[in-house]
Amino acid sequence: MKVSIVGITGYSGLELLKILNNHKKVQVVSIHATKEVGQCISDIYPHLTDQCDLVIEAFDAAEIMSKSDLVFFATPSGIASHLSEPFVEAGFPVIDLSGDHRLSATSYSEWYAKEPAKQAILDQFVYGLAEFTDVKGKKFIANPGCYATATELALLPLVQAEVLEKDSSIIVDAKSGLTGAGKGLSDSSHFVNVHDNYVTYKLNKHQHIPEIEQALHLFDADLLPIQFSTSLLPINRGIVSTSYLKVKEGVSQEAVQMIFEKAYADKVFVRLSKGLPDLHQVLGTNYTDIGFQVNEKTGILTVISVIDNLIKGAAGQAVQNLNLMMGWDEAEGLPVQATYL
Amino acid sequence: MKVSIVGITGYSGLELLKILNNHKKVQVVSIHATKEVGQCISDIYPHLTDQCDLVIEAFDAAEIMSKSDLVFFATPSGIASHLSEPFVEAGFPVIDLSGDHRLSATSYSEWYAKEPAKQAILDQFVYGLAEFTDVKGKKFIANPGCYATATELALLPLVQAEVLEKDSSIIVDAKSGLTGAGKGLSDSSHFVNVHDNYVTYKLNKHQHIPEIEQALHLFDADLLPIQFSTSLLPINRGIVSTSYLKVKEGVSQEAVQMIFEKAYADKVFVRLSKGLPDLHQVLGTNYTDIGFQVNEKTGILTVISVIDNLIKGAAGQAVQNLNLMMGWDEAEGLPVQATYL
Amino acid sequence: MKVSIVGITGYSGLELLKILNNHKKVQVVSIHATKEVGQCISDIYPHLTDQCDLVIEAFDAAEIMSKSDLVFFATPSGIASHLSEPFVEAGFPVIDLSGDHRLSATSYSEWYAKEPAKQAILDQFVYGLAEFTDVKGKKFIANPGCYATATELALLPLVQAEVLEKDSSIIVDAKSGLTGAGKGLSDSSHFVNVHDNYVTYKLNKHQHIPEIEQALHLFDADLLPIQFSTSLLPINRGIVSTSYLKVKEGVSQEAVQMIFEKAYADKVFVRLSKGLPDLHQVLGTNYTDIGFQVNEKTGILTVISVIDNLIKGAAGQAVQNLNLMMGWDEAEGLPVQATYL
Amino acid sequence: MKVSIVGITGYSGLELLKILNNHKKVQVVSIHATKEVGQCISDIYPHLTDQCDLVIEAFDAAEIMSKSDLVFFATPSGIASHLSEPFVEAGFPVIDLSGDHRLSATSYSEWYAKEPAKQAILDQFVYGLAEFTDVKGKKFIANPGCYATATELALLPLVQAEVLEKDSSIIVDAKSGLTGAGKGLSDSSHFVNVHDNYVTYKLNKHQHIPEIEQALHLFDADLLPIQFSTSLLPINRGIVSTSYLKVKEGVSQEAVQMIFEKAYADKVFVRLSKGLPDLHQVLGTNYTDIGFQVNEKTGILTVISVIDNLIKGAAGQAVQNLNLMMGWDEAEGLPVQATYL
Repeated sequence: MKVSIVGITGYSGLELLKILNNHKKVQVVSIHATKEVGQCISDIYPHLTDQCDLVIEAFDAAEIMSKSDLVFFATPSGIASHLSEPFVEAGFPVIDLSGDHRLSATSYSEWYAKEPAKQAILDQFVYGLAEFTDVKGKKFIANPGCYATATELALLPLVQAEVLEKDSSIIVDAKSGLTGAGKGLSDSSHFVNVHDNYVTYKLNKHQHIPEIEQALHLFDADLLPIQFSTSLLPINRGIVSTSYLKVKEGVSQEAVQMIFEKAYADKVFVRLSKGLPDLHQVLGTNYTDIGFQVNEKTGILTVISVIDNLIKGAAGQAVQNLNLMMGWDEAEGLPVQATYL
Repeated sequence: MKVSIVGITGYSGLELLKILNNHKKVQVVSIHATKEVGQCISDIYPHLTDQCDLVIEAFDAAEIMSKSDLVFFATPSGIASHLSEPFVEAGFPVIDLSGDHRLSATSYSEWYAKEPAKQAILDQFVYGLAEFTDVKGKKFIANPGCYATATELALLPLVQAEVLEKDSSIIVDAKSGLTGAGKGLSDSSHFVNVHDNYVTYKLNKHQHIPEIEQALHLFDADLLPIQFSTSLLPINRGIVSTSYLKVKEGVSQEAVQMIFEKAYADKVFVRLSKGLPDLHQVLGTNYTDIGFQVNEKTGILTVISVIDNLIKGAAGQAVQNLNLMMGWDEAEGLPVQATYL
Repeated sequence: MKVSIVGITGYSGLELLKILNNHKKVQVVSIHATKEVGQCISDIYPHLTDQCDLVIEAFDAAEIMSKSDLVFFATPSGIASHLSEPFVEAGFPVIDLSGDHRLSATSYSEWYAKEPAKQAILDQFVYGLAEFTDVKGKKFIANPGCYATATELALLPLVQAEVLEKDSSIIVDAKSGLTGAGKGLSDSSHFVNVHDNYVTYKLNKHQHIPEIEQALHLFDADLLPIQFSTSLLPINRGIVSTSYLKVKEGVSQEAVQMIFEKAYADKVFVRLSKGLPDLHQVLGTNYTDIGFQVNEKTGILTVISVIDNLIKGAAGQAVQNLNLMMGWDEAEGLPVQATYL
Repeated sequence: MKVSIVGITGYSGLELLKILNNHKKVQVVSIHATKEVGQCISDIYPHLTDQCDLVIEAFDAAEIMSKSDLVFFATPSGIASHLSEPFVEAGFPVIDLSGDHRLSATSYSEWYAKEPAKQAILDQFVYGLAEFTDVKGKKFIANPGCYATATELALLPLVQAEVLEKDSSIIVDAKSGLTGAGKGLSDSSHFVNVHDNYVTYKLNKHQHIPEIEQALHLFDADLLPIQFSTSLLPINRGIVSTSYLKVKEGVSQEAVQMIFEKAYADKVFVRLSKGLPDLHQVLGTNYTDIGFQVNEKTGILTVISVIDNLIKGAAGQAVQNLNLMMGWDEAEGLPVQATYL
């Protein structure tokens, strides 16, 4: 299968290229960006020397459709919303890693403050949370956001199992490494400001909030709005999503264990931790590791889920979706050996 | 005034020495430890060259009482509980930075799993949360814990103002740099395991939980147990305490602002942030900076308080307590210029 | 091919397991350590969940020889020197990642201050710097040290080409991440002491000095002793070896470029950087990247070589040696996609 | 004494403000910048809340001269070269922390690639390496650069003592934290690129090279050009300057010890380390700590000097120069207690 990547020079694009380089059934035939067009990618990114010698091309939908079988968008928000149109109209498969096809037009306008894709385009896309959506045979995938992936995988089994009290909001305290904030230059990504610091940002305003609520509402339309914090850890990779959930009386540690075990019994990329998971055990892989603890004094269940934001939270899940779309082995090409050290 | 420090080689002891070296009214006359007795401290800690040439001595209560006017304990838990006895019995002033005189004997036994001080000794100690306790003229101070300080200063004004819903537990997601975990060698403090990681530990089991509950109960005996997470940030210094609080209907951002402003109007070491505070603005100082946000969708108030765990969370507050005990300028000797960069 | 790993719980052992899990021609059949015997490795190391469920076994040479075809030693120094004996005597293949079979008995005693292996055993081993030694068909490989690998690959082509002035010592200023210092607990590996610091240690006393000199002397017996600094970077992985070399008059940037190009023309794991290499371009891979600059004012050539100390500097090169011993594809199983971010 | 700071929002400007806030004889009466004019500085920098409520003003030389007694320039290179002119012409004291008045016009043009100050202006300035220049009563001080300070203090005593071989270049491998690279946004200061990395930049092209050579040549006009590397450590503060020096035959460890002891016997801000110094022992202070080792096998002396680049390497030395100019206590206002942890 031949694929093209649009937005190659962003963090997700580079990670996607790396994963696809290890994929037996896929060949990356073109890479696209707005800057550095005409340059060999390994001249700009020396880590790709001997690994990829493609030349960066300007975006050209017709050209991509002529030589590829599928296009990945790994672009900043506000771009794929428009660029995806000719592909969708032509029935040409798209996997969008950006947030542009995850929400309704109204919700997108509100949370992204950008012009949404046309509703007719949005209607074609399936939200591809790989463990919960059946994407086999689908053509247009909206790949979930990083915070959203970690949080939804922690919450969905519990919402489905109806063990949460209805009168309390779900509270999520999520943390991310700096690659999650993107490659753009700003005071908030300057090394000096991030290092030895911990900065909470976009409190209750992060654009993954409506995405998570939308996913949860599929299983329980009555859920209260969620309380959602996002903070930057002074590290490059990784998301830790800590959820505090008021459980119904009598819901025990063992009951929660059974819920998660059942939910993920046949899911290769979700693992239940014996204790609480940390980032080292998933960085470099497509895994989501989940641990939890019921506090009998407070009736609150704490769930901690950890992922590599660039892999399971972006490029890895995109490839997982590709594998599932095509009916291939779900794990093909995906990294499973953690960096660990 | 002449003072002695017991437990000089721990992180709190060293920080205390540093602060007292800048204090106009205090002279450190002896320093004590169990290891490295007989060595000049600047031979072991080169940063003290030309700043302190005291020789480390073994602990000797009688000797300390003969040459000092006050003793600081900066020892690990389980030590000051016993060593404080002769001082208390002799009416010789003690400031204990450890957790050994903060809780009742019963609670201490349960949470520290160590033998508590005698109840008669514990009865003599005042819990010195400097902004809330009047320690003037007191002789025996139990200096608050680091997580406890950050959390209590965020919560007490709100509990006092009775704006929290009674039927919901307070949820605290607290994070600390590694100096908070102490100097001991363990896998969990090995650089390789901490760096690029985020580890949640002692979930609902941290010994500062009963300390916080005890402080809150002074103002509202009916509060539910708190939900409390503690995690390690890959940094050396700093605590971020993030609290999620269900507020009564109609409690607005402005109302909370007024509560905090009133509570801390005349407190030199608590500052209200215009936005959400980060660690850089307090590291190296005795300040507690507090920011907050009411979410009108969820009715949840998020409060973030930040401190330097070794200063306001340990040695700085101990000196602040000393200043208040003695009726001196509360800020004497205490650092107020943040490291910032 | 079936292999066993002795010293599985050290950093090199875990990395080796990870690489071999991706190797098509090798199966790890047993893993050995002195601690945690009898436990499933993924119970201790959660990142290995679903990746390896071997149980840690005590060391037993006969047992290993009965079920394996080759044994890797990833043990601290001073262990393989003795444990290797029955294997060598039985003609059973050994790859030793430790320093125990790299030096003569005399030199080992001097630099490691431990009892050396018997000379008869040492005589069987080949020092396996993969780019310079022909190990095909060999049975006993002493895998090079991390600093040594980075430094020798930077220096050997220049020594061979005879472009260095004979009357000046080679000066090497090498830096390593903390995994290079091993898993042992010590003040020097405590997070608080390493973070935000830069510590030079074992100046002119590092045990890789005789290893490097021995390798260089194979090509020029007259070289002066080298000057060698080792420092700890506050990171987990990576070695940067910066060499300062007085070149003969007239040796130009272009001449050096040609020397390196020629030396590494057919070597898949050495890349010449266009500029000076940094760590990000090699971490997570088995590559050595080399950059350099001739300073015409001083006549000094600066060469910077970078590696991932756990891969090319340990487990990766060990597998590279295995591949070469067996006549397989040199790159089989070895990671080539850098973590990069 | 009343002073003004031009360039307040840069790292050096902010550090200077912090130090002067602790100085008994100095009051900062105005602060100047090109951006954020009209805003209260503590509104932009929350760490200054309650510490400084000055409003940022546009630069106006006449205004500064009317209300201040001295002006500090903490501006990027290429600015003070021109702004200093009216002050010098009016005989109004200037301390310039930038590189604009350190070099001859010719050398400045070559290394900074910017238009130099007029030669008549440059002639008025004294290069203020506080331990070597007598600045008492001087009016115009060019404050040394950060790398230059650390390196010159390591080298000057040895050059003066004539123990270095004349036929070998001095080789310096210097490393700096990111504050040394300034506040500007660029890919090279983006957190993701710096973290877990080690990047060598401006090899043999750093603008502190001519500054160091100029200082050394005052004591030995025949010295060969120096070989100088500069690299970025993934930390915020600190410079480590490692020098490799070929010493004359017979120069021993003890001889070097005596040279340094004699050179710095009465210098309060230079300390000789018993072993090799690390950054933790000087960060947060105005100290330079120096350690060294003679290698008898190679005849090479390694000297390591460490400073806090923002203090001794910039703002601290500027205040030290002020103190010396005015005949005050050299240490007034300057921090001497290391952050350490």
